[in-house]
Amino acid sequence: MKEPKPASWIQKIPPYVPGTSKETVMERYGIANPVKLASNENPLGPSPMALEALEQTSRRLHLYPDPDATALRKAAAAHFRCKPEQVIAGNGSDEVIDFLCRAYLEPGDEVVIPSCTFSYYRIASLVCGASVRTTAMKDLAIDVDDIVSSVSDGTKIVFLANPNNPTGTCLGREDIMRLVSGLPGHTLLVVDEAYAAFVRRGDFLSAVSLIDSFPNLAVTSTLSKSHGLAGLRVGFCMAGEAVMGTLSRIKPPFNMNMLALKCGEAALADAGFLEKTLRTTWEGLDYLYGQMERLGLPYIPSQTNFVLVRVGRDSDKVCEELMKQGIITRSMNSFGLEGYLRVTVGLPEENRAFVDALEKVL
Amino acid sequence: MKEPKPASWIQKIPPYVPGTSKETVMERYGIANPVKLASNENPLGPSPMALEALEQTSRRLHLYPDPDATALRKAAAAHFRCKPEQVIAGNGSDEVIDFLCRAYLEPGDEVVIPSCTFSYYRIASLVCGASVRTTAMKDLAIDVDDIVSSVSDGTKIVFLANPNNPTGTCLGREDIMRLVSGLPGHTLLVVDEAYAAFVRRGDFLSAVSLIDSFPNLAVTSTLSKSHGLAGLRVGFCMAGEAVMGTLSRIKPPFNMNMLALKCGEAALADAGFLEKTLRTTWEGLDYLYGQMERLGLPYIPSQTNFVLVRVGRDSDKVCEELMKQGIITRSMNSFGLEGYLRVTVGLPEENRAFVDALEKVL
Repeated sequence: MKEPKPASWIQKIPPYVPGTSKETVMERYGIANPVKLASNENPLGPSPMALEALEQTSRRLHLYPDPDATALRKAAAAHFRCKPEQVIAGNGSDEVIDFLCRAYLEPGDEVVIPSCTFSYYRIASLVCGASVRTTAMKDLAIDVDDIVSSVSDGTKIVFLANPNNPTGTCLGREDIMRLVSGLPGHTLLVVDEAYAAFVRRGDFLSAVSLIDSFPNLAVTSTLSKSHGLAGLRVGFCMAGEAVMGTLSRIKPPFNMNMLALKCGEAALADAGFLEKTLRTTWEGLDYLYGQMERLGLPYIPSQTNFVLVRVGRDSDKVCEELMKQGIITRSMNSFGLEGYLRVTVGLPEENRAFVDALEKVL
Repeated sequence: MKEPKPASWIQKIPPYVPGTSKETVMERYGIANPVKLASNENPLGPSPMALEALEQTSRRLHLYPDPDATALRKAAAAHFRCKPEQVIAGNGSDEVIDFLCRAYLEPGDEVVIPSCTFSYYRIASLVCGASVRTTAMKDLAIDVDDIVSSVSDGTKIVFLANPNNPTGTCLGREDIMRLVSGLPGHTLLVVDEAYAAFVRRGDFLSAVSLIDSFPNLAVTSTLSKSHGLAGLRVGFCMAGEAVMGTLSRIKPPFNMNMLALKCGEAALADAGFLEKTLRTTWEGLDYLYGQMERLGLPYIPSQTNFVLVRVGRDSDKVCEELMKQGIITRSMNSFGLEGYLRVTVGLPEENRAFVDALEKVL
């Protein structure tokens, strides 16, 4: 019997390869309690205020959630400094990135993406049948000029992670203004600020402050890292009226579950937890910088909660040897950054354990 | 400044109009605690075993969920009687319906949908740029022959809700076999069994039992109704190898949050809760049938947890008058069923309150 044929572009999508989980490392190497510094998760756990909200909400789980996510959007607007009607919520940044692609891309359209960045932009674009054009990196940072000169009449979306994952670099105000002003009106600029809470660079400008001025701008964010809710999947897209009007036609009414709505709202009010998270991250980064200097290992100063370290050997191999020591990091070979490891900042004792293991392994 | 242009078909999508919430009725009519019998929610609340799993999982919410949903898919396979590799999980049936549309539809493709059914099939199809052809109803039931004769060379998907929402009717084994055998191999048949747990009809056949034999068949289900988890959004698609291989390229790695994974798994093991749910539903249906007969109101015998009642007057108006009495139901005018109300089976006292209010209003 003939099978139904998928859309012609679907077979070109590479199947997803998940990172190595704690469970896999426990089984494979017989490690009782490995330290996972591979997925940029918050080492402090979830926001305590989010957990309180969880308990209060659970008895209502048999009811449908608010399709408008009214309270969550209001909390997000206050946190990210825009209006509630300029926010839409999704299951992590991933889902709002999907919404943007589905809303703006027709098969054959072009999307411009820096060559070394978060891999989901490419996947979400390919699922919509778009073609992807990559731009060059400049000293491992994103090259704004190459993006601007790569955009053509057929470019519907440009994706920019700021700060960038996995390099940890960040564009400042001047570069952001040059980019947003340099793009034609028909091209939507999506700025992913998943890591913006961690930025220490003084001239950082959140693109949320520009959504009133640029109808071709959308900004995404997430509570996965800064608010410790990776497991709950809470993401946002912020944009002006035209983009919001379009996304409202794409968003399924009940995409967000009730616990994500309530816990996300509570987490956004948990200023104390965010402060503690930033302190832990920044102190951890400074500790790691010092240790890498001591070991003579180059690293990329980071504006995020992770850091790229150049181990100067096959990083797939170093990564595996670290796993045998009970430390899970991410080798950057698959990102084209050979010889680099990406290490999430953990608790002080986790950072120390990573450094100890690295010394043993190198 | 020129705005980015959405994909050409997006503007044709009707914006979503949510049902009337408890909160709205409380505000608008000053009702302290209205009875909501409008969204086919489980009146017993969430599965107690799901709530236990919630408490055990919450401390891990800062970690990313299992991208493969391994444990949930295993539990679903045992419950729905197929293999774990024949299951994919999503945020409610809605998301797996989206996956199917995105996997198989190209702009301009045709989708065949019965004229009086769950509205999301149409929306999900339109979001992919497909055109929708509707088929006739026969005495408020789905007409298999009209579906088979409506399918053409360009038909990529046929949607069938069995049992059907909002009519509550159900096709038996013979009709299902005639449909699945009557469709060409290039057309994917999606059978939505959201309400299958409630069926009392003896000749019901779950299409899950056919996925090994028909590569052009996909079956969806949900824990929203039978397991009391509408607020958590847990849905499934079950299909053979070819469809699963295609969906695995579409599914974002972290679409399901950790609580949906863990509570969904626990709820599927909660046989006692499902049994209590079915008893409550069936006793409630029988009570409502008796009362409608007493009041001389025609109704459609139902294979679900709701019933269509013909109130014989403008049902928008009756619906509003019921709200003033504190009872929320759904008027079927927007489904083209003028004069009908859809009433979810509630707890015994909720069903009585509905009957009392209806007597007052009519």
